[in-house]
Amino acid sequence: MSKSELVVLGQDAEPAACCSPMVREPLDAADAVDLARMFKALADPVRLRLLSLIASHEGGEACVCDLTGPFDVSQPTISHHLKVLREAGLVGSERRGTWVYYRAVPGALARLSALLAIPPAARPGTPA
Amino acid sequence: MSKSELVVLGQDAEPAACCSPMVREPLDAADAVDLARMFKALADPVRLRLLSLIASHEGGEACVCDLTGPFDVSQPTISHHLKVLREAGLVGSERRGTWVYYRAVPGALARLSALLAIPPAARPGTPA
Repeated sequence: MSKSELVVLGQDAEPAACCSPMVREPLDAADAVDLARMFKALADPVRLRLLSLIASHEGGEACVCDLTGPFDVSQPTISHHLKVLREAGLVGSERRGTWVYYRAVPGALARLSALLAIPPAARPGTPA
Repeated sequence: MSKSELVVLGQDAEPAACCSPMVREPLDAADAVDLARMFKALADPVRLRLLSLIASHEGGEACVCDLTGPFDVSQPTISHHLKVLREAGLVGSERRGTWVYYRAVPGALARLSALLAIPPAARPGTPA
């Protein structure tokens, strides 16, 4: 599979509509359940570092073989953390030959980023 | 205390330097520990909704008395969740008269938002 096809696959996973900043309007209960699950996947230092290694890796994807070196944890632990990130929709994976390759799901990161953004007009203390 | 003083207090809590997007460079281990703690505070649907109620409330602050109505949980549970958000640096609080008032810490939300942002030039598949 070519790299360009991979990119299209990654973008298919983006949610159609993105989050309104929470500073603008309260979250509804169903969205909160969904988003809390994604934040839970980010609530671990090793998973955060794994996600940032994948997302910042050359070409936007990283092989499992690129991900074990920097950590003082076992390969099964890394695999477990990658599974949690995948199940939360934050990374996608694909086996090619011997290795599994991971890439961040840009739409998922963008959704969380938009949720937490502080639009200038919504900054507390800014005159409306 | 006037409202404008409160705003200044909130802004004092902003970190001096904001995060580089994780898509651009891998997180270092110390930052990952700090950020994972903040994401852990967001990893609960009730806390996410509380934070969004506070952040989107008129004037950028909410009294505890504004926060119990929408939830099907007890007042002590709400207080516990508010404490977790406060300890993670996501909200600040101040007692005025009978009530404690909460406001989101804009710098903390902006830091997490920047970390998760996808700069156009860093989108996987975008030519460098």
